Amino acid sequence: MKRKIQSKPIGIFDSGVGGLTVLNEVVKHLPNENIIYFGDTARVPYGSKSVETIKKFAIQDSKFLISMKVKMIVVACNTVSSNAMNILHESFDIPFVDVLLPNAMYASQITRKKRIGVIGTAATIESGAYSKIINKFNKTHKVFSLATPLLVPLAEEGLIDNKATNIILEDYLSNLKEYDIDTLILGCTHYPLFEKRIKEIVGKDIQVVNSARQTARTVKSMLEDMGILNLENKKGDVRFYLSDIPRNFRKIAQRFLKQNTTGKVLKINIENF
Amino acid sequence: MKRKIQSKPIGIFDSGVGGLTVLNEVVKHLPNENIIYFGDTARVPYGSKSVETIKKFAIQDSKFLISMKVKMIVVACNTVSSNAMNILHESFDIPFVDVLLPNAMYASQITRKKRIGVIGTAATIESGAYSKIINKFNKTHKVFSLATPLLVPLAEEGLIDNKATNIILEDYLSNLKEYDIDTLILGCTHYPLFEKRIKEIVGKDIQVVNSARQTARTVKSMLEDMGILNLENKKGDVRFYLSDIPRNFRKIAQRFLKQNTTGKVLKINIENF
Repeated sequence: MKRKIQSKPIGIFDSGVGGLTVLNEVVKHLPNENIIYFGDTARVPYGSKSVETIKKFAIQDSKFLISMKVKMIVVACNTVSSNAMNILHESFDIPFVDVLLPNAMYASQITRKKRIGVIGTAATIESGAYSKIINKFNKTHKVFSLATPLLVPLAEEGLIDNKATNIILEDYLSNLKEYDIDTLILGCTHYPLFEKRIKEIVGKDIQVVNSARQTARTVKSMLEDMGILNLENKKGDVRFYLSDIPRNFRKIAQRFLKQNTTGKVLKINIENF
Repeated sequence: MKRKIQSKPIGIFDSGVGGLTVLNEVVKHLPNENIIYFGDTARVPYGSKSVETIKKFAIQDSKFLISMKVKMIVVACNTVSSNAMNILHESFDIPFVDVLLPNAMYASQITRKKRIGVIGTAATIESGAYSKIINKFNKTHKVFSLATPLLVPLAEEGLIDNKATNIILEDYLSNLKEYDIDTLILGCTHYPLFEKRIKEIVGKDIQVVNSARQTARTVKSMLEDMGILNLENKKGDVRFYLSDIPRNFRKIAQRFLKQNTTGKVLKINIENF
C-alpha cells in the first residue's frame, strides 16, 4: 500500500506561472519525485481578485490535482496561501504545503531586530496572513507589509533589468525605509525574478527571503516524516497542466524555469472541477 | 411589439473595467437608454490569453447579456472585437457592435498620409484585425501595429501621471516613430486614460483616435436605423454586473467613469453561462 502512495506524484498549483519558481526548487531538492504542475492561466492573476473568488478557484485547482491522484498538494501561490488555506484543509483530506508558513517561520528565526517586511499582491497583503502567522509564534515581532502589485505584470513582460521597473521598485521599497527592518519576505512567487535588484536597493543589512527554497525544504521533510518519499532511483517525471496556453507561454516559462525542467504541457478546462 | 423592444436595455460587456470608457460615451450619446454592463472581473485580463479562451469567454459573456433580454450587445473590448466577432455573429441572433470596426473606419477616413498606427494588447495586435479591416476597404493604407501590454495594469493601478509610466510609454511609442504615421488608434479601452500623455509624446501631427466615441456613435445610428431607440423621456437606468467584485473596484471604476453614472453593482457566476 505505502509503496503505491510513494510513487504517486506531488501536485503543485499556482494562479499561473509564478509557481514555477517553487517547482524549480522542489525538483532540485527532490529530483526523484513525479510532479504535476497546474497553472490557472485562463484566470490569472488571482492577486487583485476578491477573497471569495480566490477560495472558489483554489478549491477547483485542488480538485483537479486530486483527480490526478497526487499524494500531496503544494500551494505555490502566496495569494491562495494567504486567503484560502482554511477552506482547503476543511474541504480535502490530503496534506497541503503552502508557501506562507515556511517563509514566515524562517523569517521569524533569522531576524535579529524582530522587524520583518513583507511585499506581495493586494490580496496577500490585505489578508494580513504574514503578520498573523508570525505574531502567533512571536508576539513581539513587528511585521510591516506593502502591496506591490505591478511586479507581476512587469515580470511576465520580462521587464527585469529595466529603467521603468527600477523606478517602480525604488518607489515601492522606499515606503519600507522608515520601519528599520532587517528581513524582507518576497511574498509572491513572481518576485524572485527581481531578487538581485531588490537586494541592491535594500542593501546588505536586510536579508531577503524568497518563497521557493523554504517551501521545497518543507515538502521534503513532510514527505520524509510521512514515509512517502519516492525512493525509486530514477529522475521523476514533470507534467504541466494549464487552463489556457497563453500566447507567450514558452517565453515566460523559460524565464521562470531556470533548470532544465521539461515536460509535456496539456490544457484542461478548470471550470469543470 | 416594437414598443417593447425599444425599452429593452443595451448590453455592454468587457473583460473588466476598461469598457467603462465606452459606457461613458454611450450614456452621453444616448441618455435615455437602459444599459446593462457586464465586466468579467473574475477572469480579467483577456489580452494575454489564447484565441480559443477569448472566444469561449466572449460566448459566455454574450449568453449572460442575452439572458438579461438586451436588444443589442456592444463588445466594449478590443481583444474580443479582434478575435471573436465571427463566432459571436454565428452563435447568436442579436445585433452586435464591436469597438474595432467604427475606429478602423474612422481612422481610415481621417488619415491623409494613409499611414495608421495601432497600439493594443498582445491578443489584439497578434490578431492583425485592425490592418485586415482597414485594408479590406482601403487597399493602399499602411497599418503599423504594436503590442503595449503593460498599459492595462498601469491604468488599473492608477499610475497615470507617473515617471515610470512615462518611460514605458515613451519606450513603446518610440517603436512607431520610423513609420511616419499621421493617425494613431488607441486599440484598447483602457488607453484613453493615457490619451493626454500619448498626445504629448507623439506630437500634434499625429491624430489620436480612441475607441469609445466612434463606437457610441455607431450604437446610436444602428438603433435609429433599426427603429429601436428608446424614446421614453426619462434618464435611462444603468446596472452593473461583475463576475467578481475586486477589492479596489470602486476606486478603479471612479477612474474610468468620468460622468456621474451610478447604478447597482451585482455579482454573477459567469461560468454558469
